[in-house]
Amino acid sequence: MEALLRQSRSMCPFLSKTSPATLRSLSTTAAGHDVSPGAGSMSSLQVLARRCPVMGKALTLQSARTGNTALAGAFGGVRAYHTRVNRAKLHTSTPKEAQTVDLEKLGSKQVPFLHGHQKPATAPNTNPAAPSAPKAANFDYEGFYHNELEKKHKDKSYRYFNNINRLAKEFPRAHMASKDDKVTVWCSNDYLGMGRNPHVLKTMHETLDNYGAGAGGTRNISGHNQHAVALEATIAKLHAQEAALVFSSCYVANDATLATLGSKLPNCVILSDSLNHASMIQGIRHSGAKKMVFKHNDIADLEAKLASIPPEYPKIIAFESVYSMCGSIGPIEEICDLADKYGALTFLDEVHAVGMYGPHGAGVAEHLDYEAHLAGRPKGSIMERVDIITGTLGKAYGCVGGYIAGSAKLVDTIRSLAPGFIFTTSLPPATMAGAKAAIEYQTNYQGDRRLQQLHTRAVKDALNSRDIPVIPNPSHIVPVLVGNAEVAKKASDMLLEDWGIYVQAINYPTVPVGQERLRITPTPGHVREYRDHLIEAFDSVWNQLGIKRTSEWAAEGGFIGVGEAGRGEEAPLWTDEQLGVDAVMKEMKAGGDAVNILEAILEKEHSAAPQVVSAAA
Amino acid sequence: MEALLRQSRSMCPFLSKTSPATLRSLSTTAAGHDVSPGAGSMSSLQVLARRCPVMGKALTLQSARTGNTALAGAFGGVRAYHTRVNRAKLHTSTPKEAQTVDLEKLGSKQVPFLHGHQKPATAPNTNPAAPSAPKAANFDYEGFYHNELEKKHKDKSYRYFNNINRLAKEFPRAHMASKDDKVTVWCSNDYLGMGRNPHVLKTMHETLDNYGAGAGGTRNISGHNQHAVALEATIAKLHAQEAALVFSSCYVANDATLATLGSKLPNCVILSDSLNHASMIQGIRHSGAKKMVFKHNDIADLEAKLASIPPEYPKIIAFESVYSMCGSIGPIEEICDLADKYGALTFLDEVHAVGMYGPHGAGVAEHLDYEAHLAGRPKGSIMERVDIITGTLGKAYGCVGGYIAGSAKLVDTIRSLAPGFIFTTSLPPATMAGAKAAIEYQTNYQGDRRLQQLHTRAVKDALNSRDIPVIPNPSHIVPVLVGNAEVAKKASDMLLEDWGIYVQAINYPTVPVGQERLRITPTPGHVREYRDHLIEAFDSVWNQLGIKRTSEWAAEGGFIGVGEAGRGEEAPLWTDEQLGVDAVMKEMKAGGDAVNILEAILEKEHSAAPQVVSAAA
Repeated sequence: MEALLRQSRSMCPFLSKTSPATLRSLSTTAAGHDVSPGAGSMSSLQVLARRCPVMGKALTLQSARTGNTALAGAFGGVRAYHTRVNRAKLHTSTPKEAQTVDLEKLGSKQVPFLHGHQKPATAPNTNPAAPSAPKAANFDYEGFYHNELEKKHKDKSYRYFNNINRLAKEFPRAHMASKDDKVTVWCSNDYLGMGRNPHVLKTMHETLDNYGAGAGGTRNISGHNQHAVALEATIAKLHAQEAALVFSSCYVANDATLATLGSKLPNCVILSDSLNHASMIQGIRHSGAKKMVFKHNDIADLEAKLASIPPEYPKIIAFESVYSMCGSIGPIEEICDLADKYGALTFLDEVHAVGMYGPHGAGVAEHLDYEAHLAGRPKGSIMERVDIITGTLGKAYGCVGGYIAGSAKLVDTIRSLAPGFIFTTSLPPATMAGAKAAIEYQTNYQGDRRLQQLHTRAVKDALNSRDIPVIPNPSHIVPVLVGNAEVAKKASDMLLEDWGIYVQAINYPTVPVGQERLRITPTPGHVREYRDHLIEAFDSVWNQLGIKRTSEWAAEGGFIGVGEAGRGEEAPLWTDEQLGVDAVMKEMKAGGDAVNILEAILEKEHSAAPQVVSAAA
Repeated sequence: MEALLRQSRSMCPFLSKTSPATLRSLSTTAAGHDVSPGAGSMSSLQVLARRCPVMGKALTLQSARTGNTALAGAFGGVRAYHTRVNRAKLHTSTPKEAQTVDLEKLGSKQVPFLHGHQKPATAPNTNPAAPSAPKAANFDYEGFYHNELEKKHKDKSYRYFNNINRLAKEFPRAHMASKDDKVTVWCSNDYLGMGRNPHVLKTMHETLDNYGAGAGGTRNISGHNQHAVALEATIAKLHAQEAALVFSSCYVANDATLATLGSKLPNCVILSDSLNHASMIQGIRHSGAKKMVFKHNDIADLEAKLASIPPEYPKIIAFESVYSMCGSIGPIEEICDLADKYGALTFLDEVHAVGMYGPHGAGVAEHLDYEAHLAGRPKGSIMERVDIITGTLGKAYGCVGGYIAGSAKLVDTIRSLAPGFIFTTSLPPATMAGAKAAIEYQTNYQGDRRLQQLHTRAVKDALNSRDIPVIPNPSHIVPVLVGNAEVAKKASDMLLEDWGIYVQAINYPTVPVGQERLRITPTPGHVREYRDHLIEAFDSVWNQLGIKRTSEWAAEGGFIGVGEAGRGEEAPLWTDEQLGVDAVMKEMKAGGDAVNILEAILEKEHSAAPQVVSAAA
């Protein structure tokens, strides 16, 4: 028995192998991630302890009993941190509540039912002889829900959905609950208006009539069809990869792919950009693999972390091309270089970029070799170097669904192993056919995304000219900083009610507390009259609510790019030349009025857009 | 420092609180679940150790080095189990490979890179002074994929998808890759043919024209609309619940809801039926909550497990109404009674039952109070007692998507906290409108599901009359036992190629090894000529491949219900009276020929089905 105990003790390297110095360091390092609403900051040691199936239970139990917030005294003499809101943390979409505890109060009697098939000696109903175990009441589920919702109300993260019915025939207009109550939508991710594209709709109508409303099964059981085959071939070709696989959504694609790879690759380490989307964060969590978070777009930090991992260990670098809430763009080529150097896989989420960048709309990776791809030479391009590209059919392509593209063997492995792919009904034939039509349309036509870029420039310029704080970025996203959850919601409500303009407030947990914003997404349909109205409305709401202007942020030294010296002019990814406006831009830079000159270009572009009447293939 | 070390040692109750006796017991108890293909049996202690973020890594590393299969000597003197395939275990769709290890070989030098921000002293690239650390090569990803796929090929679990294009105008016919190559689909989950229902299609066409192809955003950001509001209200009403929430799929609904509840409810224990669907298994895994698996439909086992948990702990009983691969039906009322007694939540997956059972198609829970619901009196019904009902829009309702229904506060909590709901694009307006039309149609019309039940009876009777082994069950599923993966695939291929009949072979991991089957799902469209052809084909294929008949299974004592004494006649859930065929059935039981009498009823029912021409609301 002694031998057995000794063996089990030696099983946990955390106890037997970690030096006191390392333990102290872990205890005093604030964990940047896995922190959830209102939980305050935790030490790395606490985060590790929470992942332990034994300790995690104990922490949850204890925090439920002590009321969730006290951190004082945790880990005894080890330095404890004060509860504070960590402004810059985005990895917060965790289903696990990070709860702080007072470990000194945690006695064995308070963790009676821990794990395995052990019968705990102190559980009231398994040890009737226990002296002071009063009959406990059942758990109050409705009370629990009530408390969870109260927390959301209190920290202003409770979400009220707006009833927005986007009108295909009046894009970008929508009606609210009542059909007469119309508004202009300025925050949809149907970036190119493909949701109302006649080619797409015609294809969907025909497919609906011929093949019905649903697929009728999983891919393995009667839900595989010519639409899936053709769509996956189209996606693979688009990204210059051998194969592709379609999922219910890109949330599922990211989650399932990372969870599968991270759990199957022996010893896998996943390196994750700190601003990665919730779907990747969940996939990494679900994989159980070791995760290292590198600073957003920070190549040096990424390399330091890669270098710390033994070369023979599999590694995945998970990152995005366009980060949707701030519009920043990932350094794809540099990350591919590092991946080569350290033997890592690259996992690139192009969700907000597909349809929008590159001569064929394949995304930022394609855009980086614009000329080569335009000339039909993908060989050796950055896009081809990326191991796994994930994208969506639900944003610029206007439909729904997500996908991965990569080597044939990789795709076949995910197809064969990922429960999130295997055990779910296929997308409907009409959805897959519509998405394929959308990809093909955008592969062959540059007009929509160029017009979208011109509209983006015009909106950014107009807002900047009014001292309204646009968070600078090189992409099509126009994030306008508010900096307070309540005010952001009020501004959004005011725009909707007083101006008939719908721009959703983006609050925690989608962005960190203190970085709340209004996120504008112009489309090719947002012509001058809509833009003028938008700018007028923003200016007025900014006045009414007394929201900080760019110059005010600047006076405080700037914040997340707004009002920071040298950050006002971030060169857009689409160059003047690629947009075909280089001559005019030169004139503009020589002193012409930015908005007026752009407007002239826009009107020209707009009248040149094709009026689609014939059917797509 | 000494104090710190002492403290950290006391952090792990596994080491400090567990008695040697318990440890020994854990080491010698085989863990039934979390075991993946070919991994053999593990002790509970190993399973627990694998969940530890520290030990789990060490085990994976060690097993990768020692080649994954050796179990001998694990835990030193503790008894080790031989590798074996556990036939009856279905909880195997794990993304985590359960790997067995030799712990005696596991020295600290072999776990150099464990966790946290510790820099391991023995990692070759962080300690250049280490004596015998040769430069390792990078990980071979393509080789890894190749090996994973080879494993699938070897154990015959590699899946070949059939290209099946179900024709809306020729239901239940489909064409293969070539339009001229037509087959009859006998395994779709579009159980009622709603995928081609004129009401549904008309609604979808109109919505597509008015509101476009996609939602254009998440529910919070421009993707919430009247279609979501109306669909969720329709679902809530259907299930006599306060509220409902729609997800991309029911896989996501189950995963997200169980993961969120299990992780948020402090100390939650989830009790899971051993035949639960992969989506629930994943949700439970992702929750990190304690899981207890009870024997399939075994109320006594469930009660014993509930009784072992302290009353004040939150508990969720997760189960299904119709288990899709064997057609068995969960004891809903008895489980509700136990839930009341022990203060547990009931989580009921009605995915294969919605549209199919009950006077309004709300599922088995509704069917159990058939008369009360028919009379519009849901108060106090079993369906109303269930806390959380989940269902799909992609099977009997013919579209795509999934949902939960429950109390307003529960639904609001999941809406507010579940990343799988929050961070994903909404279903398209046309999909939601089509699904609502399908639910309403099936709420108001009993004909389809009754005809489906009659066809099911006819198919089961005809197969039984030919001694073809139907796994007995009271539902609409017709599982035909083959018992071998290769033979099942061969039978399926032969049916397709020689007979133009598509019935997918169901192999591991969807069913346990040794229980491979062909799963037939009749629909209202499978009239006599299709059935006669099917029976002929099965009889011929059974002869050609020498597949065991029912009498042969019976001679061996029977297997999973086939050929077992007293199991041949499982009373269907839809009674003769509910189907309106009681008088005729009496005649039949008095000696009439089953198939012929049924056929007469079917022809009568079929000619009475309404010819839909007008538009749905």
